[in-house]
Amino acid sequence: MTTRDELDYPEQDRGFLESFLPSQRVPRGSRVDASLPWVTLTFATSLDSALSIAPGVQTALSGPRSKAMTHYLRSRHDAILVGVGTAIADNPSLNCRLTGVGGYGGEDLVGQPRPIVIDPQGRWQLNENTKILNLARQGRGKAPWVITTRAPRTDAVNLLQQVGGQFVVIDSNQRGEPTADLGWQDILQHIRSMGVESIMIEGGGGVINALLSPNNAALVSSVIVTIAPTWLGQGGVVVSPARPETRSKLPVARLKQTVWQQLGDDCVLCGAME
Amino acid sequence: MTTRDELDYPEQDRGFLESFLPSQRVPRGSRVDASLPWVTLTFATSLDSALSIAPGVQTALSGPRSKAMTHYLRSRHDAILVGVGTAIADNPSLNCRLTGVGGYGGEDLVGQPRPIVIDPQGRWQLNENTKILNLARQGRGKAPWVITTRAPRTDAVNLLQQVGGQFVVIDSNQRGEPTADLGWQDILQHIRSMGVESIMIEGGGGVINALLSPNNAALVSSVIVTIAPTWLGQGGVVVSPARPETRSKLPVARLKQTVWQQLGDDCVLCGAME
Repeated sequence: MTTRDELDYPEQDRGFLESFLPSQRVPRGSRVDASLPWVTLTFATSLDSALSIAPGVQTALSGPRSKAMTHYLRSRHDAILVGVGTAIADNPSLNCRLTGVGGYGGEDLVGQPRPIVIDPQGRWQLNENTKILNLARQGRGKAPWVITTRAPRTDAVNLLQQVGGQFVVIDSNQRGEPTADLGWQDILQHIRSMGVESIMIEGGGGVINALLSPNNAALVSSVIVTIAPTWLGQGGVVVSPARPETRSKLPVARLKQTVWQQLGDDCVLCGAME
Repeated sequence: MTTRDELDYPEQDRGFLESFLPSQRVPRGSRVDASLPWVTLTFATSLDSALSIAPGVQTALSGPRSKAMTHYLRSRHDAILVGVGTAIADNPSLNCRLTGVGGYGGEDLVGQPRPIVIDPQGRWQLNENTKILNLARQGRGKAPWVITTRAPRTDAVNLLQQVGGQFVVIDSNQRGEPTADLGWQDILQHIRSMGVESIMIEGGGGVINALLSPNNAALVSSVIVTIAPTWLGQGGVVVSPARPETRSKLPVARLKQTVWQQLGDDCVLCGAME
């Protein structure tokens, strides 16, 4: 079975990524924690650090080679995570369209990551146009998990269960009141407890900026950023973490062990959080 | 003569820059214009496109290899230009400290670029702590030119003339009234008429964003950006041009013929304006 949207990512472009991928789970010093999954933070920006030209507007930034790389990365992780804002604005596929994975020439769903949407307040309205559900129906992607703090509506539960997905209600408030105050450690530990050993986190801006903040940086195993040689200009949705008052004269985050690899006109930057 | 702040930039790191430097003055299509100098726009940013952590705060971003590259670039241009905001905030040296250029082991001022400060309103106060003047006195840099629209004060004229520098009063208003509304084409043509065949423009944010805007992009021959693998966080001085209303859904600027070269932990991106 071949489809028009299949992607190939050549063998010779894979090597530079290897030490930043989960199978290499190298000792991460004090950060090795079996209760957490391997977390790859990955996204594409313009030179002025914008993910998109305006809130809710999907913007094609990266060229074909770096787009294919993203799908190769998806094939190397158990799950792929986005925030609800991205799920609503982009109606993303969140599957892997690399030639040879399940649904794209391969067996069953081998190589397909589990889509996970973080939706604390239950804002995401699932319907017949939701791409993730349709791909799951067609055998081209795994069914999604939706992480929330609110009891989901029965019709939404049914819609998700029909394709094999589920709501995961995390109640971080011991008194039983749902709270939107889901911490990233809670979320990632819960996901790990469900069998996910590696996850790539793709966006959107709020999620990425939260994970780059000093509070959460230790949860991130590696960072893979694609940079396109464009300036989108002021007003875009930018990756730039909030600066804690205690770091007013220091960078908020820094990558170490960096590898920069040109792919087409773009560059892919790999590194570990310092 | 050697000094503690001399820099070396190795031969093997030079090749990737060559096609973006003035001696290569390749046909630039309709943009070849003998009334204009070759313009290299060059600066260093964080991943979130910040030049510095806050207005007026100089921030060390790039590592030693990319810093040495900047001085190599300076040796390859007739002049180096900054806006008055940078001159005031940073009190920059704007000379070339590459081993072997004039003042750093070489003859006279061979290899030293002419410092040019754009100061339409005459805000820059020259005094005995002004590094550019002191370096000129010491034979470690050329004397500066200050481009302005206002008649300079006699004491400032004298101070500048003592080291061999000058004020250049451009009156773009035919009625003789000074105006702050200096256009970049006017400025660059004037500089070219004074014998400068190549110039690198280093900052600050206002100058860079103006030259990346669609109105001025055709004046830029090449762009060389150093990117450090840090996020300075929100509140920095960022490179991100204003978006004209007519381009609300398009990138404001894009580079073509890109070359990305890792130097240490940083990356140097070279390209031409599309």
